[in-house]
Amino acid sequence: MANISRRDMLKMSVVGAGALALSSVNANAAENEKAVKFDEEWDVVIIGSGFAGLSAGITAAKRGNKVLILEKMGRIGGNSVINGGIFAVPNNDLQKKEGIEDSNERFIADCMKAGLNINHVDLLTQIANRANDVYKLTLECGAQYRDRLEIAGGHSVPRTFSTANGSGSGIVHPMVDYFKKMDGVELRTRTKFDEFILSDSGRVVGLKVREGYKFDSKLLSDDDENTTGEVKYIKAKKGIVLAAGGFCRDVFFRQQQDPRLGPDTDSTNHPGATAGVLLKAFQIGATPVQVSWIQFGPWACPDEKGFGVGSMYNVNASFRYGISVNPKTGKRYMNELADRKTRADAMFRVIGTDKNYPINICDSEAVKNLLPNHLEKPLEAGILKKFDTLDDLAKNYNIPVKEFKETVAKYNEYVKNEKDVEFGKPLDKTVVNDITISKPPFYAERGVPKLHHTMGGLLIDTKARVISTMTKKPIEGLFAAGEITGGVHGASRLGSVAIADCLTFGMIAGENI
Amino acid sequence: MANISRRDMLKMSVVGAGALALSSVNANAAENEKAVKFDEEWDVVIIGSGFAGLSAGITAAKRGNKVLILEKMGRIGGNSVINGGIFAVPNNDLQKKEGIEDSNERFIADCMKAGLNINHVDLLTQIANRANDVYKLTLECGAQYRDRLEIAGGHSVPRTFSTANGSGSGIVHPMVDYFKKMDGVELRTRTKFDEFILSDSGRVVGLKVREGYKFDSKLLSDDDENTTGEVKYIKAKKGIVLAAGGFCRDVFFRQQQDPRLGPDTDSTNHPGATAGVLLKAFQIGATPVQVSWIQFGPWACPDEKGFGVGSMYNVNASFRYGISVNPKTGKRYMNELADRKTRADAMFRVIGTDKNYPINICDSEAVKNLLPNHLEKPLEAGILKKFDTLDDLAKNYNIPVKEFKETVAKYNEYVKNEKDVEFGKPLDKTVVNDITISKPPFYAERGVPKLHHTMGGLLIDTKARVISTMTKKPIEGLFAAGEITGGVHGASRLGSVAIADCLTFGMIAGENI
Repeated sequence: MANISRRDMLKMSVVGAGALALSSVNANAAENEKAVKFDEEWDVVIIGSGFAGLSAGITAAKRGNKVLILEKMGRIGGNSVINGGIFAVPNNDLQKKEGIEDSNERFIADCMKAGLNINHVDLLTQIANRANDVYKLTLECGAQYRDRLEIAGGHSVPRTFSTANGSGSGIVHPMVDYFKKMDGVELRTRTKFDEFILSDSGRVVGLKVREGYKFDSKLLSDDDENTTGEVKYIKAKKGIVLAAGGFCRDVFFRQQQDPRLGPDTDSTNHPGATAGVLLKAFQIGATPVQVSWIQFGPWACPDEKGFGVGSMYNVNASFRYGISVNPKTGKRYMNELADRKTRADAMFRVIGTDKNYPINICDSEAVKNLLPNHLEKPLEAGILKKFDTLDDLAKNYNIPVKEFKETVAKYNEYVKNEKDVEFGKPLDKTVVNDITISKPPFYAERGVPKLHHTMGGLLIDTKARVISTMTKKPIEGLFAAGEITGGVHGASRLGSVAIADCLTFGMIAGENI
Repeated sequence: MANISRRDMLKMSVVGAGALALSSVNANAAENEKAVKFDEEWDVVIIGSGFAGLSAGITAAKRGNKVLILEKMGRIGGNSVINGGIFAVPNNDLQKKEGIEDSNERFIADCMKAGLNINHVDLLTQIANRANDVYKLTLECGAQYRDRLEIAGGHSVPRTFSTANGSGSGIVHPMVDYFKKMDGVELRTRTKFDEFILSDSGRVVGLKVREGYKFDSKLLSDDDENTTGEVKYIKAKKGIVLAAGGFCRDVFFRQQQDPRLGPDTDSTNHPGATAGVLLKAFQIGATPVQVSWIQFGPWACPDEKGFGVGSMYNVNASFRYGISVNPKTGKRYMNELADRKTRADAMFRVIGTDKNYPINICDSEAVKNLLPNHLEKPLEAGILKKFDTLDDLAKNYNIPVKEFKETVAKYNEYVKNEKDVEFGKPLDKTVVNDITISKPPFYAERGVPKLHHTMGGLLIDTKARVISTMTKKPIEGLFAAGEITGGVHGASRLGSVAIADCLTFGMIAGENI
């Protein structure tokens, strides 16, 4: 059992009484429907209001179902509403227009390479097949995208849309508005799932929830210790969709999987990203799959908390059109467009134990590709800095000037030759558009990987049905989509495939429920 | 969901009716004690009769407890009785006698390096602290060891005992005999665990089992489909120890964690090594930890099934005193004493898709270090071959002769210099005792990694108590030890630490129950 710090143990013992009281209530993961009086009845109940939950909700409601989406937080949208809004759509129309060749096989091969070949190919194939469908669904809801394609790290071609406002909110907000206008639906916040209600045959027929619950980020485990809210029993005639997201902010559970992650390890995720729903599903026999793989997003900044305002500068400018430099040596140390695990591992080696954070650099041509707020906000926050000369930049971060300028000159040469002979960063014109590091002012931001995505979770089949460990068949009435599932991404997810994953399996759940 | 082959799906649908019938019975993982009439009553009930179960049983019985050990198979000892009988004991007396310096820190550092630093250090520390205690327990039971120390791959010093008969049976059989002579104990075979019996407060108070059950290796999932045996309810007043081993032979569950593992992927494990007990424990809230890490043993032979008779030749002769060669190139390709994951990964790269199995080679001086049966049995089976000259050997395996002889000459030079400048194999005198590849006859065996150990499992604390996902505290009445637990070994277990792990946490469970 990985150690929780003394401070946290203390914190825990303070709330011990509450936790113990709950433990008896929780001894069984599920209640039997015969012992329950339902307060209300819906066709479909969805836990979670991010990309997956909204896609499932809209799809199910379109098919005439009465749909209730439950969100435990006061705010709608989970991680989806704060993410970077980049969305991989293999074989999209803009690729065709721009002459970029893509295929299902190419998309799957890119994902498998990052995923260390343990991805579930049948699930990846569903994403490849359906990404254009869900992209169109977001357009129908009113989402807007920039008229250009990004290349997210690890993808072999540009295939990634980005929202017009540069955030996942550019998809979530239109989908919420669209959903709320549909007939016979409701999206209810501050409502926390507690238990599954099962029939005698083991079918999931409803949920025990608490309304008016208030998430408390000061607790070591809100899932176990928080007792706020009023109990209600909700029947789901056709089924339940688990779309509750990952567990990057579950201090206890994540540390058991990787003891190096302490309570203070920063994450890009919102505070409610805990493992509660996942763990309850295991207790009714859902199959755990690849739960130990936890991903760091390599484009975060150590000078702010969470996802912050500085990540998108690296995602869409410095990593694509610039370089990442070790300030001790003045040299590059990785392919800035490699997959996330490869980059995070390389960055951690540079950072070492003495917090030698890499410096992510590009020039004024590069930042023209950014949305205005992705440049202005980090500058305002003081985490992104602007320099008139490379000498000034080097001086500010204590980088050896001569080595640094040699590094920049070499990189610029690679761009001209469209070939990075050192680290293999893709430098074709379609990717970097001839942009070198030449035109002042120059920009720089310190970089650090932060906990970003939990690859593992519940095993689902291609119809988004949760598979039982006991029967190897679907648990009747139970579906799941998005980060709470596992297998799709294998050991490491490629950037911009989360939105495609969540929306696709949300839609599939909505179609099959 | 990883694909099960068409053949297996067919197999599955044949048994579908049975599986469905069981699914309703299994809808809840646990029954309440109020609904149960117990047929018998013990202080301690242990599931599994390998190293961990026997250690727990003997320790608990020594403390005056009435102890029942349940074994689902007809044969006692699970994987323990067929393993290679190598047992790492850091800081042992023979090391001191031979002037080998060791320490807890050194042992833990070796384990962490192989485990990619995600090991649970508190658990490793228990092994380091208690390995000498459990070694003495085995001596007390009558186990016999050779008067020399082995160096298992990835250990930085020789610290590994091996049993006099070269098999885990050299420990299991004396322990079984010892246990059976104790007062108030029983070891019952063909008895299969089905369900936990819980009290209202969630304490584990007993088990539902089936006696006279017959394991059926022809079923895709014996755990779900086998209905043989007669139901019995057994009360455990003080607690239950889960010592049911790993899941290397669980075709369905292992493939979800790594879809590359097909039903035909060979394993060193006995056919009963399935995930049934582990998965049931998840359903009463036991915490899954690092379940996706599955280890290949790099010392197996493709020319026989399972652990076979050829593995120990590589473990104790060819890898320590010889070399492993790529038959296509005639060259070495790895440190033959690296940790298992490093070696298995290297071997798989050589094997590729065209089954280009490496050749593991040593000379007649090297094999003098083997127990007679570890040499004779594979020779008799025809999987280990003997050659008068290196030319004959090369010819037999189609190895380019010139390159092969250069490889041998280079390696012999490394041994003389006590330094492998190519792959960093440790070649100090204490490890290889000046043995080169010089004296005919020469020996060779084809090599392949086989599924060997599942690192992940149930989260336990340093008292071997199973930790609940809900309370982060022990599930009352529930202990676990050995391969069914996770965290100890991180991403990859070092050879010869399994016995130390199983015996240590078995003893700790027996002390704390």
